[in-house]
Amino acid sequence: MRPRPAFSNAVAVVGVGETDYSRESGRSELTLALQAIGAALDDAGIEPREVDGLMKWWVDTSLEAEVAANLGIPDLAWWGEINQAGNVGAALVAHAAAAIFAGLANVVVIYRGVNGRSGRRYGRGDVTGQRGRGAGAFSEPYGLLTPQHGLAMAARRRMFETGITSRQFGAQAVAQRRHANRNPRATFHDRTLTLEEHQASRFVIEPFRLFDCCLETDGGGALVLASADRAQATAAGRPLALVRAAAQSGPGVGAPAKRGAERLFDMAGLSRADIDVVQIYDHFCPFVLFALEDYGFVKDAGRLAEEGGTEWAGDGVPVNTSGGHLSEAYLQGMNHLIEAVRQVRGESTAQVPNATFSFCDTGIGAGAVIFERFET
Amino acid sequence: MRPRPAFSNAVAVVGVGETDYSRESGRSELTLALQAIGAALDDAGIEPREVDGLMKWWVDTSLEAEVAANLGIPDLAWWGEINQAGNVGAALVAHAAAAIFAGLANVVVIYRGVNGRSGRRYGRGDVTGQRGRGAGAFSEPYGLLTPQHGLAMAARRRMFETGITSRQFGAQAVAQRRHANRNPRATFHDRTLTLEEHQASRFVIEPFRLFDCCLETDGGGALVLASADRAQATAAGRPLALVRAAAQSGPGVGAPAKRGAERLFDMAGLSRADIDVVQIYDHFCPFVLFALEDYGFVKDAGRLAEEGGTEWAGDGVPVNTSGGHLSEAYLQGMNHLIEAVRQVRGESTAQVPNATFSFCDTGIGAGAVIFERFET
Repeated sequence: MRPRPAFSNAVAVVGVGETDYSRESGRSELTLALQAIGAALDDAGIEPREVDGLMKWWVDTSLEAEVAANLGIPDLAWWGEINQAGNVGAALVAHAAAAIFAGLANVVVIYRGVNGRSGRRYGRGDVTGQRGRGAGAFSEPYGLLTPQHGLAMAARRRMFETGITSRQFGAQAVAQRRHANRNPRATFHDRTLTLEEHQASRFVIEPFRLFDCCLETDGGGALVLASADRAQATAAGRPLALVRAAAQSGPGVGAPAKRGAERLFDMAGLSRADIDVVQIYDHFCPFVLFALEDYGFVKDAGRLAEEGGTEWAGDGVPVNTSGGHLSEAYLQGMNHLIEAVRQVRGESTAQVPNATFSFCDTGIGAGAVIFERFET
Repeated sequence: MRPRPAFSNAVAVVGVGETDYSRESGRSELTLALQAIGAALDDAGIEPREVDGLMKWWVDTSLEAEVAANLGIPDLAWWGEINQAGNVGAALVAHAAAAIFAGLANVVVIYRGVNGRSGRRYGRGDVTGQRGRGAGAFSEPYGLLTPQHGLAMAARRRMFETGITSRQFGAQAVAQRRHANRNPRATFHDRTLTLEEHQASRFVIEPFRLFDCCLETDGGGALVLASADRAQATAAGRPLALVRAAAQSGPGVGAPAKRGAERLFDMAGLSRADIDVVQIYDHFCPFVLFALEDYGFVKDAGRLAEEGGTEWAGDGVPVNTSGGHLSEAYLQGMNHLIEAVRQVRGESTAQVPNATFSFCDTGIGAGAVIFERFET
């Protein structure tokens, strides 16, 4: 095997944090972001004045300048965004890690604060304010106006091509609910879900039943990144999450997930079998199973889910161990990234024993990251 | 002196390109961007299919997905933006170089395509669509609605503090016009300007006279970046521009230019006296002189300009050698970056002899870069 690039494991996630998740936060999105950042910095043991980099979702409404002013950052040396909708979280990790690796920033915070239920509800359409642009110019005139409209067509096509079924989607939704039932932070912590309930739930848009769809959530989350050297020096005694590999993916020939996965696992020097636990963006449950196949974890993800192989305690591929967007909260991948870090720190409420390598996709192939457990 | 970081000179600008500059392009902004990218790739000798990274101004209307589709990029592995107005060009170079240095992309294109005269005219206000956000929340209610409103106040304050005069601003405008008179691409190639004409021109907003203000331009520009190793292998016989250092700067305590300059020159391992030629963002001419002082090039920039020390053929600090935003074109820093590259390649129409180190600021301290001449 050829040597891994110097970038691999040069940077670590040294802190994670979130607010409470609710349907009506009663706070501004900026306040949610700041509260989450505060929690993540506390977790990292880092003062706000040490932060010199900020990255955010393009659709996040809290400007970097506002966040910097509120945190009292003395010299903001790096900030940036990625122009897509919810699916940029892992790619932001790649960007932040590149900045730290190049020496352009020391401590980068990635944040998300959103009133996704009491404020702008993404499921009602026009998430990015870019109506009529890009692919939308060709699909919106035919009535495909919300994320679920277009994705339903893609899901239908996949069902036709591979024979994957709604019951199999349901098995995955049930597995994630079981994870949420162990997670006190989860919106559906106290509500169970059976396959029969999933199958009896109404179609929102065929083939998406109600329990195939993500939550709408008010809340905030944040990650703090720093160099592995710094992490080693300051986090004595605590496990951290090294960025073993990170990849952004997008427009091109064929599925972004397949192209991104090739670069990601090549950079990591790992095979799929090395991964202990997986988080996958679940705006709609079918795409979890599609991604498991596209990323090369399994050939028949429907069957894996049906056999219980995506549950945390199974011997298959544990997937979305916090409950994910379906049952924990919908923070557009941020809560998946936090859970991926917690798994390699040994702190999940559905902890996979001895998790060393944790994989996280944050949206239909647009980016993925592999974290490695690191004992300080 | 401590050793320079590995990032310094690891990446090169291997191609530059632009369209014609006009007041009415008759083309879409996407077409302008694509034509500029085509020219820059031709200059680099690189095929569009080799491009795997794209970066753009946040305010640029040509989405990365649209550009990728039009270029036929097979696997877009990196893209991103920076949430400010015109002043992000040098910071985009920092981001692109970090991606290449980390191994996350091989060939990154930075592009700008804008109908700044026939389309949306930035001088009329609301460039970013973020009315009421950030600092604007505190100044817009008092009528500071366009870039020139707020910046006029800052210029007034500086005149009060340091005694710098409108005649000195005029000397800089005249120097830049002389550069434009040598540059066939420049909008004002065929029109001379005297200090008396500058002083007789009307106030747009005090203290900005007409000839203190940038042009409004339709046009496009692009840069192509790749690793220095790749550049060395493929560009035999041609000089290139290494990214000796790059810095982003922004919110914090004190002037962003001062904080950014400290990091930039520290990374470069250079002093101000090592710099052979300077490009500085000139939305309004006074800010060129302010920045020369803030970046530490000279203590009294007004006097330097008055003595002809900012002209290309002088023995001072040659500044804005293409004519800049005042007299060449207003591409929000893109044409400054192109000129900074051309200077170290020995290809400027106001060439500074033996230029080895070229400095470029792209907007009131938000980012700056130092290029180094590299003989292949």
